[in-house]
Amino acid sequence: MAQGSFVSSPSTREADVVIVGAGLAGLMAARSLVKGGARVVVLEARDRVGGRTLGRDIGGRVLDLGGQWLGAGQPRLARLAADLGVSTYLTHHAGKKILLRDGKLSTYSGTIPSLPLPGLLSLELALRKLDRLSNKLPEGEALSAADADVLDGQTLEAWAGRLIPRQDVRELFDAAIRVVFGAEARDLSMLYFLAYLRAGGGLMKLVEIENGAQERRFVGSAQELSIRLAAELRDSVVLSAPCRRIEQDGRGVIVTSDNITVRARRVIVAVPPQLAGRIEYRPLLPVVRDQLTARMPMGSTVKCIAVYDRPFWREEGLSGEAVTSMGPLSVVFDNCTQDGAVHSLLGFVVGQKARLFSESPEKERRDVVLGSLSRMFGDKARKPSAYVEFDWSTEEWTRGCPVGIMGPGVMTSSGRALRAPVGRIHWAGTETAREWTGYMEGALESGERAAAEVAELLAEKA
Amino acid sequence: MAQGSFVSSPSTREADVVIVGAGLAGLMAARSLVKGGARVVVLEARDRVGGRTLGRDIGGRVLDLGGQWLGAGQPRLARLAADLGVSTYLTHHAGKKILLRDGKLSTYSGTIPSLPLPGLLSLELALRKLDRLSNKLPEGEALSAADADVLDGQTLEAWAGRLIPRQDVRELFDAAIRVVFGAEARDLSMLYFLAYLRAGGGLMKLVEIENGAQERRFVGSAQELSIRLAAELRDSVVLSAPCRRIEQDGRGVIVTSDNITVRARRVIVAVPPQLAGRIEYRPLLPVVRDQLTARMPMGSTVKCIAVYDRPFWREEGLSGEAVTSMGPLSVVFDNCTQDGAVHSLLGFVVGQKARLFSESPEKERRDVVLGSLSRMFGDKARKPSAYVEFDWSTEEWTRGCPVGIMGPGVMTSSGRALRAPVGRIHWAGTETAREWTGYMEGALESGERAAAEVAELLAEKA
Repeated sequence: MAQGSFVSSPSTREADVVIVGAGLAGLMAARSLVKGGARVVVLEARDRVGGRTLGRDIGGRVLDLGGQWLGAGQPRLARLAADLGVSTYLTHHAGKKILLRDGKLSTYSGTIPSLPLPGLLSLELALRKLDRLSNKLPEGEALSAADADVLDGQTLEAWAGRLIPRQDVRELFDAAIRVVFGAEARDLSMLYFLAYLRAGGGLMKLVEIENGAQERRFVGSAQELSIRLAAELRDSVVLSAPCRRIEQDGRGVIVTSDNITVRARRVIVAVPPQLAGRIEYRPLLPVVRDQLTARMPMGSTVKCIAVYDRPFWREEGLSGEAVTSMGPLSVVFDNCTQDGAVHSLLGFVVGQKARLFSESPEKERRDVVLGSLSRMFGDKARKPSAYVEFDWSTEEWTRGCPVGIMGPGVMTSSGRALRAPVGRIHWAGTETAREWTGYMEGALESGERAAAEVAELLAEKA
Repeated sequence: MAQGSFVSSPSTREADVVIVGAGLAGLMAARSLVKGGARVVVLEARDRVGGRTLGRDIGGRVLDLGGQWLGAGQPRLARLAADLGVSTYLTHHAGKKILLRDGKLSTYSGTIPSLPLPGLLSLELALRKLDRLSNKLPEGEALSAADADVLDGQTLEAWAGRLIPRQDVRELFDAAIRVVFGAEARDLSMLYFLAYLRAGGGLMKLVEIENGAQERRFVGSAQELSIRLAAELRDSVVLSAPCRRIEQDGRGVIVTSDNITVRARRVIVAVPPQLAGRIEYRPLLPVVRDQLTARMPMGSTVKCIAVYDRPFWREEGLSGEAVTSMGPLSVVFDNCTQDGAVHSLLGFVVGQKARLFSESPEKERRDVVLGSLSRMFGDKARKPSAYVEFDWSTEEWTRGCPVGIMGPGVMTSSGRALRAPVGRIHWAGTETAREWTGYMEGALESGERAAAEVAELLAEKA
């Protein structure tokens, strides 16, 4: 693939379709279109492909600093990995899990933490109610639900406050919400939340390993998928080319980046709505679309990886999974490579804690995270051989992870602008997915959908 | 003032302070700093000054297409008008007011519409409760309220749903909310809403003419204030210079616009947070500040002015004020000039209706607005001698009016970044005001506050 050229007079290229963003959505769209015979240019702001996936060599193996799991029931992602020759393996989950709350540590097996019986019943009730509510939504069409308006008028927090009165259950529930969205329950519209559950198969599926969204991992890293897709596309992918401006008229589009200008018949913008909103458009976008980009902030997620010489937790009968309402972390996973070469625990700082995280000095951040791990996994956790953290909110070309979220009022007022093309501009990215919104699977679905939209229009005019 | 030069190689200027945005906040900041002896450059994206105020000649008099009222209890704005020699006059309000709801037209005197007695009691109860809640907030410091967290976890809609069960009262309440914020009750955090009421003196004050936020008008237009401020500042104001990039280091700032680059010791960004978020920063802004800019969308407001040969409503004993839950308009005001030269009614399309408004063709928009006016004011309203509308959401350098708003979770998570300087970057604009947030008075207060921050720091280093 071509490295962006940094000459002072920008070069110009012609294509049938220009794609903004070389994450999974943009690359999948490019792949589909190229297969159909279209000439494609993909502009990527960063000096790498992969968007919200990113591999880094830590202790001799490439570990994931971004999205990393292949979930159960994600056929596109499984197929793509197989196509590209990227192997996967089951996420480790054998052993007891840890719950740390109210200063007390306990362990449990199965999927439901060790709560007093009334707490368990309350949690079960809330989960069932959520499943019922989300299953009532028409799939991929939450806006057409009869009670869409009522659901979009309230926060998830207000709902949870009514349905989950017990503090212990609420803490668990909030931890799950934070990890799934990188946000607080107050940041989410109830309608958006239910639509998200619907798209992924329910809250328990989103938070679990076995038969859940965290079921498998990629050998190497999830970024390997994008690296291989980009390799197939060769010099169609231009790096270090942040898109600044999209002009369209009756004949085509002109997309201007820092170092290259592309003329094409159509453009697919495959970046989160918030980032799409920072591009200059001529003519301006319709009001509802512009409002959408101003009302879909990114969640906040920091991944923290502590590498150890031995997987001591496994040796002590622990799975490596933990959930807590204390300290900077919300959940922890075993993160050892399948070949036994690098042993690590992966902790998530998410939601409001993540927003504040980067304000602490590096040493302090490391200390509180390792302190938190050692409260859950014992003293051995305090002395890793390596410690790496990655704060997606400080990445200019993502500005948060895992996903752009919607507060109350956004979906019913601006949701219809999420996928609706604006003239020659089409929209992709996991935020626009009907299935598995917010996940890699959703990114692929959105890329395929946008490519199909464009291919049909290109064929009409051919 | 200097027209931006459109030469291909951008010019460079030096100053003590560069100010981004020549609305009232930026110009007030500039005026304060210049008075203190500082060298100032003001960069304005548009080819005019005044931001969310704008006068246009309609039928021989300049009418306001943007902010237009001097409210009771707005000393800075009154003083500035006097200083600059811009006269003001009382907004007309003599006569009966109109309420149109559920297909029925009624008139009323005083401040409270003609509802059945239980409705009146319910409205009175809700208003008192709001006053009590908002007065409990520490002035200008809502975040330090004991129940800030609870209030910020819910929408105003959820609260209103509990406290205002009657449909007739709710419709009136919602119309008031739409006009004040250009948004729906579901779009607002209860904490943000109460803080806004606190800053302006209560909901009734915000919606009323006499002793309220709409008490007086400016001869000419409110934009005249900015035009005269800019004239004082002469070639310190550079038009057609949208700010694209702000770099800072230990020594100063470099602010890059399309046609001029300014080096200065400090910068005041005096545009709404959402627009500030579209500027490129080096280094990047702190996460909490970046999140704030992604979570403060602009309200949506369209002003519609219908000019008539005679003020026929006054002749029929009507004040020209109306409130309705039917049709595109939410409220109407008499808008005649004080000299009796141009007679007009002013209608507001606000909130969700405003977001959709620009999707209809021009003729259709005009027809529905005039149809709505004629349902309230009779057939004579259907045939104006002139009709003008102005949709602030379609303005690239404002993207909505009257104000940037906060949904649930924003104030408690990111609110502290609203005014906090980031190194050499200071923030102004009515969104950052402690008093009269969202109003011209707030813009002035914010400009004074930011100028004082900067002046103190400049003096330290002098």
